[in-house]
Amino acid sequence: MTDTTTDTQHDGTNWGRWGADDERGTLNFLTPERVLAATQVCKTGKVYSLSLPIQQHGVPIFDYRGAPRRYSLTSASDIEPYANMGGAPGLGANEDMLVLASHSITHMDALSHVYTEDGIYNGFPRDEFSTKGGASHCDIRTTGTFAGRGILLDLPGHQGVDWLEPGHVITRAELDACVDAQRTEVRAGDILLVRTGWLDLFEQGTDDFAQPGLGVDAVSFVVDHDIAAVGADNAAIESIPFDDNVFLAVHIELLVKRGVTLMEHLKLSELAADGCHEFFLSVGALPVTGAAGSPINPVAIG
Amino acid sequence: MTDTTTDTQHDGTNWGRWGADDERGTLNFLTPERVLAATQVCKTGKVYSLSLPIQQHGVPIFDYRGAPRRYSLTSASDIEPYANMGGAPGLGANEDMLVLASHSITHMDALSHVYTEDGIYNGFPRDEFSTKGGASHCDIRTTGTFAGRGILLDLPGHQGVDWLEPGHVITRAELDACVDAQRTEVRAGDILLVRTGWLDLFEQGTDDFAQPGLGVDAVSFVVDHDIAAVGADNAAIESIPFDDNVFLAVHIELLVKRGVTLMEHLKLSELAADGCHEFFLSVGALPVTGAAGSPINPVAIG
Amino acid sequence: MTDTTTDTQHDGTNWGRWGADDERGTLNFLTPERVLAATQVCKTGKVYSLSLPIQQHGVPIFDYRGAPRRYSLTSASDIEPYANMGGAPGLGANEDMLVLASHSITHMDALSHVYTEDGIYNGFPRDEFSTKGGASHCDIRTTGTFAGRGILLDLPGHQGVDWLEPGHVITRAELDACVDAQRTEVRAGDILLVRTGWLDLFEQGTDDFAQPGLGVDAVSFVVDHDIAAVGADNAAIESIPFDDNVFLAVHIELLVKRGVTLMEHLKLSELAADGCHEFFLSVGALPVTGAAGSPINPVAIG
Amino acid sequence: MTDTTTDTQHDGTNWGRWGADDERGTLNFLTPERVLAATQVCKTGKVYSLSLPIQQHGVPIFDYRGAPRRYSLTSASDIEPYANMGGAPGLGANEDMLVLASHSITHMDALSHVYTEDGIYNGFPRDEFSTKGGASHCDIRTTGTFAGRGILLDLPGHQGVDWLEPGHVITRAELDACVDAQRTEVRAGDILLVRTGWLDLFEQGTDDFAQPGLGVDAVSFVVDHDIAAVGADNAAIESIPFDDNVFLAVHIELLVKRGVTLMEHLKLSELAADGCHEFFLSVGALPVTGAAGSPINPVAIG
Repeated sequence: MTDTTTDTQHDGTNWGRWGADDERGTLNFLTPERVLAATQVCKTGKVYSLSLPIQQHGVPIFDYRGAPRRYSLTSASDIEPYANMGGAPGLGANEDMLVLASHSITHMDALSHVYTEDGIYNGFPRDEFSTKGGASHCDIRTTGTFAGRGILLDLPGHQGVDWLEPGHVITRAELDACVDAQRTEVRAGDILLVRTGWLDLFEQGTDDFAQPGLGVDAVSFVVDHDIAAVGADNAAIESIPFDDNVFLAVHIELLVKRGVTLMEHLKLSELAADGCHEFFLSVGALPVTGAAGSPINPVAIG
Repeated sequence: MTDTTTDTQHDGTNWGRWGADDERGTLNFLTPERVLAATQVCKTGKVYSLSLPIQQHGVPIFDYRGAPRRYSLTSASDIEPYANMGGAPGLGANEDMLVLASHSITHMDALSHVYTEDGIYNGFPRDEFSTKGGASHCDIRTTGTFAGRGILLDLPGHQGVDWLEPGHVITRAELDACVDAQRTEVRAGDILLVRTGWLDLFEQGTDDFAQPGLGVDAVSFVVDHDIAAVGADNAAIESIPFDDNVFLAVHIELLVKRGVTLMEHLKLSELAADGCHEFFLSVGALPVTGAAGSPINPVAIG
Repeated sequence: MTDTTTDTQHDGTNWGRWGADDERGTLNFLTPERVLAATQVCKTGKVYSLSLPIQQHGVPIFDYRGAPRRYSLTSASDIEPYANMGGAPGLGANEDMLVLASHSITHMDALSHVYTEDGIYNGFPRDEFSTKGGASHCDIRTTGTFAGRGILLDLPGHQGVDWLEPGHVITRAELDACVDAQRTEVRAGDILLVRTGWLDLFEQGTDDFAQPGLGVDAVSFVVDHDIAAVGADNAAIESIPFDDNVFLAVHIELLVKRGVTLMEHLKLSELAADGCHEFFLSVGALPVTGAAGSPINPVAIG
Repeated sequence: MTDTTTDTQHDGTNWGRWGADDERGTLNFLTPERVLAATQVCKTGKVYSLSLPIQQHGVPIFDYRGAPRRYSLTSASDIEPYANMGGAPGLGANEDMLVLASHSITHMDALSHVYTEDGIYNGFPRDEFSTKGGASHCDIRTTGTFAGRGILLDLPGHQGVDWLEPGHVITRAELDACVDAQRTEVRAGDILLVRTGWLDLFEQGTDDFAQPGLGVDAVSFVVDHDIAAVGADNAAIESIPFDDNVFLAVHIELLVKRGVTLMEHLKLSELAADGCHEFFLSVGALPVTGAAGSPINPVAIG
């Protein structure tokens, strides 16, 4: 390893590992050396957007978050908007207003997203997230910008199915088998993207709330490989119902205890269809002061 | 050139150049070959966020757009939110609602953003942008994801000043001189970022509405070099007051006539301070169906 | 009649009846004398709210309008918000943000709400309602405040049913029969509230889109009695499907042609249960500049 | 008194006065008998709107609440919106979206608005107001609808000035003197409106944050007369800076301790110009589930 950190904590967390003030978590694995190395893995130069469209229908929406909305702010219906400023006849600008949950559709979780009675990642108190100001530690600005080598574990592709069954709990062994079958090398600092096929099932019109996703057993894969961030094509990275019925079990293990940035509802089917299992990946979330998450449009270069 | 296009149009536009249905404009210059080549220009692996924070104060806000707002959607003040679902005591999630103009702070213009009496880029009718649905052509989804080689022309750095004077109209000659002084090679498909220093002046607390920016004379630089997209650290790429007092003169030349994607209020000071004039740049805007723009957080790799 | 107006127009509209600049329509019938007389009709002093609660579930929501949302702006989770201003320990304020369609749940239509190819009420051009500014004539400010004598025609009560059948088209004869049975005197300037029972059916959980409501035949009741405004407990005053399948037939006759203010999704069951068919009614809509409607909470005094 | 309540509490609060579950506070004074009597005070039938327009400029806005916004939801720029449903050519509807703070401009406070370390009115815990759900007790639905006799104390009119000085703390003696001079009878259950003239000063373009308003000394006027609700033309009923520099001193005395509904930024100049000091007043706030306040448009009948 080229970064300098203490050993993994004996309590199974990364709290304190990068200092008491750390707000980056496992993104600390993404040293400049590793980012530079990641730029060397591209083979085609094809650009992939990993975000679903942001719209009201045809995409997964949680009722309590509401559907994202776009309203028109200005348009050609505004009669000669620039006439009194000397604008040419017929000249104007279209603009929009956006109203959406930070965790809408394709999004990432800031490290302040989930709290337990012990607080959020690195022990910052859970009541620091206030109604008015949001997160005073670990807001999305601290983790929203990163880049590195991405790898795709295409579980349905490997297993020869269209999608894993709803409710299926993905194990460490399944991840290892997929790595082997794909002959994908896993490196420290990698950004791990797991395809479950769930979005493809969603597009078939399922109304099943259950989803395939990571189980607690799979956490060791992330830990042992020094994975920097994890994404998936489902709602919560982890399976729903939750593994062993422990609510948010994998969020607690990854996001809260180890500071692993999570990305959800990623559109991974195009990468899978191309057999692109290794790529350069960059993420630029909206750096909203105080926010616990952000919609994202990760960009992969094949 | 490795892409196959017709010659530049005789009327000084790119309308029809990539077909009557084209909605990508000069992003067509970003062929996979060029993107792949762009991944080879990095030297340090340092990751730069080019976005200002999204917040209500201390950043440039236009009154008619309003300040971006973050509201809390859920927090630890929601008593045991997951208790009835079997969640552990003290467990919960912080989430936010975002209300912001698509052209807030650091943002990009979709090709449907500006219209003249002839329509938007490629001749799509200007009245296609409806109140309810927004853009039916050239919404942000069509141009919001791209990557390539970025170059920074640091005009204040080259000219030995903190910032160009407010209202200063940047000429082609100034861009050429900066290129020469920086010894920056300009390649077809490059993403051109122009630093005027205006954001540094803004941070000093100026209330001068005037800004330095590109003039119509500088458009030929973009055209001659087959630039794929243009960004700057000011509000409108172009100077304010507008060059020769033609309202939105440079937007009309670049965005409307030639389909050049524009990015505004980019934070370029860190790249400049590092003398990083060449980098890999990726942009993943929010792919909002129908939107004429999006806030962005472009990611540069030095 | 105590107001001074020209005769009813031969073309069946009120356009020009109260002058070319009029933006009040039949609210002009509500002269001070009639308002004063209306204060004399109360018998019990009981106060009725005619608005459904504004919330996300359990109330009629149209998908394109979205459910109304309340977000917390400030709360006790904001640690000692007034401490730096000298506030006592533990002191603070709870506040909210509201995001809702102007035509949400219980609401009224401004006279700019519906347009035909001839324009809105009184012939104001339909393209005057701009994306940025909204209505330049007949916005909700011009009609949003009024008061007078309200009468309730309780059709299900009169007909001995729980509700009129979905899709039922109410005729003039049905209104006349109800008036006679209730022994309700109808006076010029009255505010007519029609109970169809639809909200009661909605509360039973119907997913039938059809609704009972006024037909074109019933318009003469409104015209002949110089009714000032019309409200009902359904979504559109008129029946759905529309009478004779003419889209918005009754809106065109009442709102557009005659300038009759309309109120929808009124909660009328409590008035009906009390047999209160005559009351003082006051309406204070949100006077939003440019808006084509507003949520309302009309107040009736029995 | 025609209502049956216990005596005023010895601790100077009304907590428990109308039962441990009470969420109406002094609106309990508004018995049906008093409301019925209030309908008999009108003399002219003139209808007054007491709300300022809801718009972005020219009205008092607090920065942390943001300016109210109206966006267009549908308009004639939506090409033939009803064509596919059989609508006539040129037919359509204009609608809006509203985004505004519940305490915007002319508004009322729910009894859950202000909390002290002892809780909100009637001792409900202050942490009951959650981020997601808002108020579980004393939301605006419980107090948002009321009507009764309103009286206006026109202090500048009585004192022969355009407005009271910014920062002026209004005393009990000033209210008594105004009552005497106006020969206004004060009755139990009255809704007291106090004109300070501050809105007139605001319209002159003052940027003075200080405002005239009630002091703690004036609270006894409200208590002794069994006033049901209090409104004023300033931002906070009370003076700014606060009386004796006790933050929210009068809110604590009236809203929290005694459950007195408060209304702020009322437009009272027209009533004052007409010398209308007695009137029927009705208020129908938006009954938003969980909200701590609402914009209002109170309607007075002279």
